[in-house]
Amino acid sequence: MSSLFDLIIFDADDTLWHNLNQFWLTQDRFVELLSPYHDKKSINDRLYETEMRNMAHFGYGVKAFGLSMIETAIELSEGRIQGHEIKRIIDYCKEMLDDPIDLLPNVADTIHDLHHKYPLMIITKGDLLDQENKIARSGLADFFTKVEIVSNKTAETYAQVFAHHNLNPERLLMVGNSVKSDVLPIIEVGGRAVHIPYHTTWEHEMVDMSHIDEKPYYELDDIAQLPDFLEKLEQMTDD
Amino acid sequence: MSSLFDLIIFDADDTLWHNLNQFWLTQDRFVELLSPYHDKKSINDRLYETEMRNMAHFGYGVKAFGLSMIETAIELSEGRIQGHEIKRIIDYCKEMLDDPIDLLPNVADTIHDLHHKYPLMIITKGDLLDQENKIARSGLADFFTKVEIVSNKTAETYAQVFAHHNLNPERLLMVGNSVKSDVLPIIEVGGRAVHIPYHTTWEHEMVDMSHIDEKPYYELDDIAQLPDFLEKLEQMTDD
Repeated sequence: MSSLFDLIIFDADDTLWHNLNQFWLTQDRFVELLSPYHDKKSINDRLYETEMRNMAHFGYGVKAFGLSMIETAIELSEGRIQGHEIKRIIDYCKEMLDDPIDLLPNVADTIHDLHHKYPLMIITKGDLLDQENKIARSGLADFFTKVEIVSNKTAETYAQVFAHHNLNPERLLMVGNSVKSDVLPIIEVGGRAVHIPYHTTWEHEMVDMSHIDEKPYYELDDIAQLPDFLEKLEQMTDD
Repeated sequence: MSSLFDLIIFDADDTLWHNLNQFWLTQDRFVELLSPYHDKKSINDRLYETEMRNMAHFGYGVKAFGLSMIETAIELSEGRIQGHEIKRIIDYCKEMLDDPIDLLPNVADTIHDLHHKYPLMIITKGDLLDQENKIARSGLADFFTKVEIVSNKTAETYAQVFAHHNLNPERLLMVGNSVKSDVLPIIEVGGRAVHIPYHTTWEHEMVDMSHIDEKPYYELDDIAQLPDFLEKLEQMTDD
């Protein structure tokens, strides 16, 4: 029995489990903390600016987010922010890192099902220790034969990972919630991708699709549709 | 021509380039910053306690160090620390991440020399983005055929990395400055190790060697001795 794919690759944050939610909830607490100093919109805007400016230094993840929140708090309060308030921002970060993993609906069943049919891999970006801990706490680690944690998801990064694992991109399918990080770079290196939108997307991950006539990738509403979708794809190719 | 080793592996921080120095220098600035609130010894002790307590959350690296410095500053000043002072701690972190890479003496020549004789690999721990940037900025990246950045250096981590790369630990030699991280776990998984002490070692990395009668690893004073040492080792085995 031939198969189209040697491997199905999953993004993790907001594809297998909730992640952005946790950042938004923390950001709401941050806005509340700074409400004596500024209005909600300026706090959110300024935090986003700080995060983008710090990206090259701090990368993605909770620690980067924490340092950017602290920096924003100091700037927006013109230094009037109190020590105990900054301490609360550090505590928010620790709570984020301790939070139980909240799997997205149908993820556990789908992964259980698919791992009998294909080898599965995770490629996720962020803090090394944090991502490792999340995979370990997800209860899904045993279903994935390969895991790669990367600092950024560009076509170049993917090409390096695939070369490293001796993988032919043409025989790979990537599944993820971000068109920018999980879909377009995979297509660029010759792979195929399924986009499963998360209910919100981080502003920074938005891509202007207006110039793309026909989407060069598949789109599903829910990960539960993935096994059937793959079966149909295999059948179409057999015909 | 047979060879004892399929691969020579190097630790990076304080083996190929200065790293702890940079942390000590920053810690000195931190002590100076907090000198209005506390004496040097209590600041250093308290920072070390905070770092150890935060290790499970934040791991190793500059961002973890930054968050621990901020937390320590707030606690030691009983919240009296000012916003602009905390902003300076964040700036220290950014400066650390921007600092030029300061190769240790004889590293460049030795790596140039050795890469003609053996495939070379780096296994380093810390922040993913930071370590990647350091390797890229070191000017040495092209001499290493493999690079792995890990969140911790235990026997288990090494075993995983070696399995992942299909490497036989018995045919590997690891070179590093930390007995705890670069030497003992390598011996535990069946590899060989060369310890090249850095002039200082972080307290957390100290190992009590008093119970070890004979060191089960090699020790060199300087990386410049490594090519000759390897040549002798190969000759001894040929005889």
